[in-house]
Amino acid sequence: MAGNSFGYVLRVTTFGESHGEGVGVIIDGCPPRISLSPEDFVHDMRRRRSGRHNFDSPRKEEDQVEILSGVFEGQTTGAPLALFIRNRDADSRPYDVLRQLFRPGHADYTYFKKFGHFDFRGGGRSSARETAARVAAGVVAGKILGPLGVEVTAHTVELGGIKAEAIDPGFVKKSPFYCADPAASERMKEAINNAKEQGDSLGGVVEIRVTGCPAGLGEPVFDKLDADLAKAVMSVGSVKGVEIGAGFEAARLKGSENNDPIAPDGFEANRAGGILGGISNGDEIVLRAAMKPIPSIYMEQDTVDREGSAAKIKLTGRFDVCTIPRIIPVLEAMVLLVLADHYLRSRAIR
Amino acid sequence: MAGNSFGYVLRVTTFGESHGEGVGVIIDGCPPRISLSPEDFVHDMRRRRSGRHNFDSPRKEEDQVEILSGVFEGQTTGAPLALFIRNRDADSRPYDVLRQLFRPGHADYTYFKKFGHFDFRGGGRSSARETAARVAAGVVAGKILGPLGVEVTAHTVELGGIKAEAIDPGFVKKSPFYCADPAASERMKEAINNAKEQGDSLGGVVEIRVTGCPAGLGEPVFDKLDADLAKAVMSVGSVKGVEIGAGFEAARLKGSENNDPIAPDGFEANRAGGILGGISNGDEIVLRAAMKPIPSIYMEQDTVDREGSAAKIKLTGRFDVCTIPRIIPVLEAMVLLVLADHYLRSRAIR
Amino acid sequence: MAGNSFGYVLRVTTFGESHGEGVGVIIDGCPPRISLSPEDFVHDMRRRRSGRHNFDSPRKEEDQVEILSGVFEGQTTGAPLALFIRNRDADSRPYDVLRQLFRPGHADYTYFKKFGHFDFRGGGRSSARETAARVAAGVVAGKILGPLGVEVTAHTVELGGIKAEAIDPGFVKKSPFYCADPAASERMKEAINNAKEQGDSLGGVVEIRVTGCPAGLGEPVFDKLDADLAKAVMSVGSVKGVEIGAGFEAARLKGSENNDPIAPDGFEANRAGGILGGISNGDEIVLRAAMKPIPSIYMEQDTVDREGSAAKIKLTGRFDVCTIPRIIPVLEAMVLLVLADHYLRSRAIR
Amino acid sequence: MAGNSFGYVLRVTTFGESHGEGVGVIIDGCPPRISLSPEDFVHDMRRRRSGRHNFDSPRKEEDQVEILSGVFEGQTTGAPLALFIRNRDADSRPYDVLRQLFRPGHADYTYFKKFGHFDFRGGGRSSARETAARVAAGVVAGKILGPLGVEVTAHTVELGGIKAEAIDPGFVKKSPFYCADPAASERMKEAINNAKEQGDSLGGVVEIRVTGCPAGLGEPVFDKLDADLAKAVMSVGSVKGVEIGAGFEAARLKGSENNDPIAPDGFEANRAGGILGGISNGDEIVLRAAMKPIPSIYMEQDTVDREGSAAKIKLTGRFDVCTIPRIIPVLEAMVLLVLADHYLRSRAIR
Repeated sequence: MAGNSFGYVLRVTTFGESHGEGVGVIIDGCPPRISLSPEDFVHDMRRRRSGRHNFDSPRKEEDQVEILSGVFEGQTTGAPLALFIRNRDADSRPYDVLRQLFRPGHADYTYFKKFGHFDFRGGGRSSARETAARVAAGVVAGKILGPLGVEVTAHTVELGGIKAEAIDPGFVKKSPFYCADPAASERMKEAINNAKEQGDSLGGVVEIRVTGCPAGLGEPVFDKLDADLAKAVMSVGSVKGVEIGAGFEAARLKGSENNDPIAPDGFEANRAGGILGGISNGDEIVLRAAMKPIPSIYMEQDTVDREGSAAKIKLTGRFDVCTIPRIIPVLEAMVLLVLADHYLRSRAIR
Repeated sequence: MAGNSFGYVLRVTTFGESHGEGVGVIIDGCPPRISLSPEDFVHDMRRRRSGRHNFDSPRKEEDQVEILSGVFEGQTTGAPLALFIRNRDADSRPYDVLRQLFRPGHADYTYFKKFGHFDFRGGGRSSARETAARVAAGVVAGKILGPLGVEVTAHTVELGGIKAEAIDPGFVKKSPFYCADPAASERMKEAINNAKEQGDSLGGVVEIRVTGCPAGLGEPVFDKLDADLAKAVMSVGSVKGVEIGAGFEAARLKGSENNDPIAPDGFEANRAGGILGGISNGDEIVLRAAMKPIPSIYMEQDTVDREGSAAKIKLTGRFDVCTIPRIIPVLEAMVLLVLADHYLRSRAIR
Repeated sequence: MAGNSFGYVLRVTTFGESHGEGVGVIIDGCPPRISLSPEDFVHDMRRRRSGRHNFDSPRKEEDQVEILSGVFEGQTTGAPLALFIRNRDADSRPYDVLRQLFRPGHADYTYFKKFGHFDFRGGGRSSARETAARVAAGVVAGKILGPLGVEVTAHTVELGGIKAEAIDPGFVKKSPFYCADPAASERMKEAINNAKEQGDSLGGVVEIRVTGCPAGLGEPVFDKLDADLAKAVMSVGSVKGVEIGAGFEAARLKGSENNDPIAPDGFEANRAGGILGGISNGDEIVLRAAMKPIPSIYMEQDTVDREGSAAKIKLTGRFDVCTIPRIIPVLEAMVLLVLADHYLRSRAIR
Repeated sequence: MAGNSFGYVLRVTTFGESHGEGVGVIIDGCPPRISLSPEDFVHDMRRRRSGRHNFDSPRKEEDQVEILSGVFEGQTTGAPLALFIRNRDADSRPYDVLRQLFRPGHADYTYFKKFGHFDFRGGGRSSARETAARVAAGVVAGKILGPLGVEVTAHTVELGGIKAEAIDPGFVKKSPFYCADPAASERMKEAINNAKEQGDSLGGVVEIRVTGCPAGLGEPVFDKLDADLAKAVMSVGSVKGVEIGAGFEAARLKGSENNDPIAPDGFEANRAGGILGGISNGDEIVLRAAMKPIPSIYMEQDTVDREGSAAKIKLTGRFDVCTIPRIIPVLEAMVLLVLADHYLRSRAIR
C-alpha cells in the first residue's frame, strides 16, 4: 500500500534508509531449490557501490549482503528471502541543514508535505542507497531466469549530451560508463570531470537490452510487459523518461515503416523492441531510460525553509556527478525483476 | 494476476472483446454518495468514439454506458460499479484471414504464442475497443477527484512528424486533433489525409497536463506517482514512450539548469513535471506519451501463418489513420485513474 | 480494496445487487482453452435457486448465466470471463420499511453506519442473491481443477438442532437437505415446517469434503490452505463458525490421540482434515461451517429507526426458513475457488 | 504470492526460521508520526516467550526487537518498519532425525512434498517461532488503533477439556493460563503437569474480545471483518476452528432467539459477536479459536521416512505441553492486525 513492494508472484519489498541500520529486501515467491550464497551478490553490489572512480561519491560501503532467511544448506527453501546490507560509512553531519531547508530537485519538499517529518540523513528513504536492495533482489531474479538463458545488459547511449555513435558491444565492459563507443566514452569522462570542477552534475540515457527472453511473457491490457518495465524503470530515482523499441521515434514513422515484417525465421526488424500487445515476441527486448542530472550540486541555490520563507542552500557532503555508471546495475536489476515475475506468472496460467 | 486490473484502492478491472457482447469495467473501491448517472459518460464516450471524422474508422458505436450495479437513487453506494458498453456495429468478416495469418505490428502473434488460440474478431481483447471501458472508469475517477479541483487535459504536440509550435490553449478544443497550434493542426489534417490515401498510418505525441493536484500524492520507492503514470500510459496500446516534465531533454541539462528553484510562492520552474521523489509537489503535472503509427494499414505486408510459413497479408476492414484524436480521452482517463487511486491511498495513510 | 475480490491467481470479483439489474462476476486468471458454455452453469445455478421446495422463498429466478466475455469458439481465451445473471422476479415493495428501520440480525444497520445510505431493496449488496455469482465462479473453478480429479461435496450434519447420525453418503442427493441420514432428513423437514408455521427460522451445520486434492496446495504462514478456506467460508453470509478436521473437538484430545500416524500407504487417521502446516497432505480435506438461523422472520422485533428512536419492525416478503439447502452449492463453490487458486499458485512456484 | 504477507493497507510480511539468523517482519503502510521504540515490544514479546513457566519449552530467548528501519527520532516516518528478532538459544541437534523422518501432526510431510526439501531445524519456517514476528507487528497495530481506544484481550475458556465456568475478568492476568476462572485455572495446571509427565500434550479454546471498536470496519462480500478474522486466526499454527459470537451454538437457535434486538442505546444482546453483514456494529467483538494439542510429544509414533518406508519416531528436544498460554499474545496480535488494516481501509473509502 505504501508502495514499497513490487511484483506479483515474485514479490519484493525493500526497506531501510541511507543512514539508518542498513537497507534490505524481502523476496517472497522465490521458487525452492535455487542455489544461493552471499558470494552471488558480490559482483553486482560492487558495480553499484560508490567510491570506485574518482568521479563518484567517495562514500565507501562494502555492501556485503547478509542472507537472514530463506536459504538452507545453500538452497532457497521457498520461504521468504531476507537480504540485508548494513550501513557502515554514513556521515550524517552534512545533512543537518535539512532540518530547515529543502534541496531543490530532491524529495525533501514532497516528503515533508506528505509525512510531516522525514529522515533527512543522507536522503533517508529517498536515497539512492535504497537501490542496493534492488540490486540484491535482481541477483535472485537473475537466478530464477537462469534456466531460460535470459541476459540483461545495459549500456550508456548518452551522457552530458554526448552520444555514443560507433557501437562496439565488446567495449561496454571496458568503459567506466558502460559506453559502447570508445571515443564517446573518453569525451564523457571529460564532461564528468568538467562538471565536477564546476560543482555541477550531468544526466544521461541508458539502453537496456534483453536477449533470450521467450515469447509469451506479459499480460494483456494493464500488466503489459512494457507497462511493467516502464513502471520499474521510472521507479528508479532520477529517471524522467522511458521508451521501448523505436520509442519516441516511432511517433514520426509511418505504419509501413514501423511495422516489423514477420518471416519464417523471426521478425525482420525490431522497432517494436521485442514486445507486441504487451507480450514478448521472442525477439530482443530493447528499452531506454533518460536520467536527469543529479540534483545534489555544490552551487548555491534558491529554496525555502519549512516555514516557507525564502532561503539559500549550498550543499556540502559527498555526491556523484552523474547517476551513470552506478545506476546501470539498478536498471538491469529492475528489468530482471519484471521478467522473473512475468515468467513465474506465465507458469501459473498456461 | 492475468493483468486486467489496475489500481490499489480504486481498483478497476476491464473485460470484454471487440466483437463479443461488449466491453465493461468493474470499479471497486469507489467511495459512497457520489452522484452518478449514465449521462455523466456521454461526453467522454463520444470523444473516444469512432466515426466522427472522415479520417477515423467508419465503425459507429453509440457507446452508451449501462450502470449494472453500485448506484442507488442516483448515488454510488460503495458497492462495485459495473459499467457495460454493448457492441452493436461489429462486422467480423474482414478478420477471417486471422484464422491463419498474423498482422505485423499487432498482438496476434504474441497472443497466439501465449494462449494457443485467441479471439481475433476485431482484435478481440487486444482491440482499442477495450479502452472504451477505461474511458468510462476515468469518468468515475474524475468524479472522485472533483472536490479537489483536479483538471486533466491532453493536447497533441506532434502528429506525423508535424510539431505544434505556437501554443494557443484555447484552440485545443477547436482542433479535431486537440492541437494547440492552429497552423500545425491544419497541416496535421493534410498529413492524415495523405496517409489515408496511401493506405498508410501515422503516429504522434500527446502531452497531458494536470492542474489542481495537491502536494503529497504518490508513494516512495516503487509506487511513485510518476512510475504509476508511466505504467498507466504505457499500458495503452500503441504507446511506445513516456516522459515526465523535461523528460528525455533533462538528460542533456546540467543539475544547475534542471533543478527547479523553490520560492515562497512555489517552484520557479517546472522541469520536474510536478513530481519530486515520486510524490506530487503541488505544481502542474506534465507528461508526454509517444504513439506509434497504427499497425493496421492497407498495404501488402510480409508475415507468416500459424504454421510458420511465409505469407503475404493485405488487410481490409475499417481502421483509423492515427490513434490521435481518439486516444486523447483514453490517456486522460488513465491519468485520472492514477490520481484518484493515489488520492484515496493518501487518505488511508496520513 | 472494497473487498469484492477473492483469490490471488484466480481472481474473482462479484458485483450486483438483489433488486438491481442483476449480479455477476469477473474471473481473471482463468487459464486458456478450457471449454465453457452457458449449459455448464445450469445444474449448480438450479441448486442455489429458490422456489424449488415449499420451504424456500417463493421468489423464482431462472438464473441463466450469460457469458459476456472471455470465451471464443467454446473455449476460454485467458481474457477475463464476465458472467452475468439478470434479476427478473424482484419485488421491492416489501422493503420500503427499510427506508427508516433496521432489521435485527441483518446488515442494514452496519451498511448505514459505514456508507451513509444503502440499496435496501431485497438487501441490496448484502443479499444472498450475490452468492449466485459465487456459484457461477465455482463452476469455472471446478473446470480448472477437473484434470486433477478433485471432487467437492457438502452435506448437512445438523439442522435446527437435529443431527445426522447414520451416515449414508448415497442418500445425500435424495435428501432435500443434502442430509446423509434418511431419518434425520425427515425430522429436519418437520422442523423446517414447524418453524415456517411459527414465522421463525433455523440454522444448521454443513460439512464439506474434498477428495482427490493432491498434496502441496496451500502456502506457509498466512495463506495457509485452511486459513483461506476459513475466510472463504466465513465470507458467506450467515456463517458464524468454521472448523477443519477434528476442529473444536481437537481441543479436547491429547497429542497422542490427535496426531494422525503416517504409514506407507498414507495417513492412518484424518483428524487433521487433510491439511498440515497449512498445506494439503493428499488426504481428504474435511471442514464444517455453522450457519445461524436466517434473520428474516415474520415475528415482530425491537429495533430503532435511522434517527435512533425505538421502533417495532414486522417483515413481510419472501424468505427461506433456513440457509440450508440453498447454501450448499455456495459453500462448495467457495471451496472450489480456494482450491483452484492455490492449484494455480502452486504451478507458479514449484 | 508465497503467502508470507497479510493485510491490505497495513501490510505485514514475516520472514525467518526457527534456527536461522532470526525472525522478522516488514510493516508497510504504517502511518507516519507514531512514536515507537524497542521498549514498546518488551511486554508482549515476554508474554510470547518460552521458559517462563515450568510447563513450557525451556528454550530461552530474550526476543529483543531491533528496529532496522522506518523510525526517525522516535517516530514512524511512513517508510516500512523492519523489525528483527535474533535467534540466540537454538539447539538444532535434536532435529537431525528430520533429515529422514516426518513428525506426525507437523508440517514436515507437506513441506517436503511441496518444496522438495526444507529447513527442518526447529521446524524452520513452520515453527511457532515465526509468531514472534507477528506479536511484534501486533504491537504496531495496537499503536495505530490507540487513538480509537480499541482493546483486544484474550482469555482461555477451555484447556485439556477443562472449561472455565465462573468468569472473573480480573483473574485473567493472575492465571498463568489467562483463565478467568480461578478453580478451572488450578485444574488446568494439574492437567498440564499430568500431560507433561506422560510426555503428551493438550489443546484448548481461547476467546478473544475486542472493546472500543467503532461501527463500520469491514467490507461487504469477501473481505468481511469476520472472514478476515477467521483467516487471521486460522493462519496461526495449531488452530483448527474459529467461531464468531454465538458461533456453532447459533446453528441450534431459532431466528427469534438469535437475532439481537436493537434499542436506542445499542444492541440488547450480542449473539452476533459485534459483526453484522461483515461489518462491525459498534458492540464488543467476540471470537473463539480452538487449538489442537501440540503435535510434538515424547511418545513413540508411527511414521514413514522420505522414501515412504514405515518407521518409528521418538522426539527429543524442548516442547511446550500446550500452545496456551504462549499463543495468547499471538491471537491478540492477529486480531489487532486485522482491525488496524480495516481501520486504515475505512479511511480511504468513506
